Amino acid sequence: MLYLVGLGLSDETDITVKGLEIVKKASRVYLEAYTSILLVDQSILESYYGRSIIVADRETVEFDSNDPSESNELLRYAATEDVALLVVGDPFGATTHADLVLRARHLGIPVSTVPNASIMSGIGACGLQLYNFGQTVSMVFFTDNWRPASFYDRVRENRQIGLHTLLLLDIKVKEQTIENMMRGNKVFEPPRYMTVGQCARQMLEIEEEKGEGVYGPDSLAIGAARVGGRNEKFVAGTLKELCDSDDALGPPLHSMVLLGRRAHELERDFARGFAVDKETWDTLWARDYGKQDAPAAPQTDDNAEEKEDAKVQASL
Amino acid sequence: MLYLVGLGLSDETDITVKGLEIVKKASRVYLEAYTSILLVDQSILESYYGRSIIVADRETVEFDSNDPSESNELLRYAATEDVALLVVGDPFGATTHADLVLRARHLGIPVSTVPNASIMSGIGACGLQLYNFGQTVSMVFFTDNWRPASFYDRVRENRQIGLHTLLLLDIKVKEQTIENMMRGNKVFEPPRYMTVGQCARQMLEIEEEKGEGVYGPDSLAIGAARVGGRNEKFVAGTLKELCDSDDALGPPLHSMVLLGRRAHELERDFARGFAVDKETWDTLWARDYGKQDAPAAPQTDDNAEEKEDAKVQASL
Repeated sequence: MLYLVGLGLSDETDITVKGLEIVKKASRVYLEAYTSILLVDQSILESYYGRSIIVADRETVEFDSNDPSESNELLRYAATEDVALLVVGDPFGATTHADLVLRARHLGIPVSTVPNASIMSGIGACGLQLYNFGQTVSMVFFTDNWRPASFYDRVRENRQIGLHTLLLLDIKVKEQTIENMMRGNKVFEPPRYMTVGQCARQMLEIEEEKGEGVYGPDSLAIGAARVGGRNEKFVAGTLKELCDSDDALGPPLHSMVLLGRRAHELERDFARGFAVDKETWDTLWARDYGKQDAPAAPQTDDNAEEKEDAKVQASL
Repeated sequence: MLYLVGLGLSDETDITVKGLEIVKKASRVYLEAYTSILLVDQSILESYYGRSIIVADRETVEFDSNDPSESNELLRYAATEDVALLVVGDPFGATTHADLVLRARHLGIPVSTVPNASIMSGIGACGLQLYNFGQTVSMVFFTDNWRPASFYDRVRENRQIGLHTLLLLDIKVKEQTIENMMRGNKVFEPPRYMTVGQCARQMLEIEEEKGEGVYGPDSLAIGAARVGGRNEKFVAGTLKELCDSDDALGPPLHSMVLLGRRAHELERDFARGFAVDKETWDTLWARDYGKQDAPAAPQTDDNAEEKEDAKVQASL
């Protein structure tokens, strides 16, 4: 049996009781540590779980081209033993785990998954309502000659219908220099985690280049650090203000939300508590936000319906 | 201190270790049981947690108009004791809990929240990728003279840009008849939970009425039951097929996803495993899905960027 166990967002105590029972019983326990990271070290997990943990790299979890059977180390063991793969966040947050489940299914290996908090839902702690979010986008580190901007079109789509956009920020873990890679040196660069400041600057850079007014320096956003952790931190402000928010936010992981105009006054009031400058927040909100609907789809709801909606949306 | 503790989606073992420690130490433990439900009874929670639990109704958690201080029973205790409010899913899944946190903040009561899986992220278990979802909508029970259709506009917005839509289905818990309410009889109707079949029928009814072709009987969707539970179940098919899927799905809670065309072949293959009729699934997919972009925003990504995107999107 292959168990995919979500670890949640922050530390060793974010595992569920169900997940912990599986970790204690499994014959082998792997930790997938290249798509995201917890905020604590492997040794803390090991002593808390009372188990040694094998750190799984891409070759262990993903398609192994040396093995024609679509299998890999993980699946070979799971065919005959109870193997647990620990995944930061929720097991289905990452494409790569869905792919693993699918391959296990093809090989006839039973799979059981244990859900947990994901940044996709945990971001609700910033005070913005989850049902007001559009698609999630990712922001990668720009280099001198590579500044991918596909996020811009997706942000536009969300903003055209007034929705918030969650931006997931790049991490570089176990990266090799091209030189080390070519020489086969297993020497890795120090990990890098994109900050909210970097993200905000890259966004403004692309807006300046494209000039389509999808957002601007005055657009409201929320920077988030260590969501779900005991010292999680939010900073709300304009994109321009967030360019300089890294000191306030502190250590990784960071993520960011760009606000959509179809926002509710509860969201305004909640996030206002995190505002760099409350006056700016109030002024810009009054000017640009709290518009209940997009021009393309006139609001026809009556109050009763909105109230009923709110009740069902609460059923999460 | 007010603790908001997410319980996750299914049973008593879905609480996190961090959450369980809080429950064991708090002086009072409330369970919010009107916006959603776990799949197990209160008594099972009580014996597992080793605590008696007070079931919190709307008056306990929400604004109490008899109390001019914006307080209520929960906040009055939390001002001087450690009070835990247990919330099905994630504490920030429901608007009402964000409102509670905001009022606690105004009253100077410290708040700590413990995240957990929410249906918003847990739905990833159906094989559709979370970053391909647009806004979440809610579907309420239609009555003879009340058939709210605001969901239709929101589904259109999602589908116009090729995104999936998660539909949260109505629950009616502790509802009174108008007669009992007027007489002040505290007699409650049996709880009702909307099924995927009912949702699919209501959707088709509204499409027939509006005739705008936002979706149709051939649109692909996935019905989900007891997501995150040991016996979770998914059924994939056309809206027409899902009208008759309730027997296959079994007991509550149900939810549903209407697919967007901007879907990936991994999503096709994963969900195909749940298909009512695999041939229909393949045919309709080939005809209408797997289109990588919306007409309004031509795809300009190169492969390298898509690959990089996939990696970051994996960082959940």
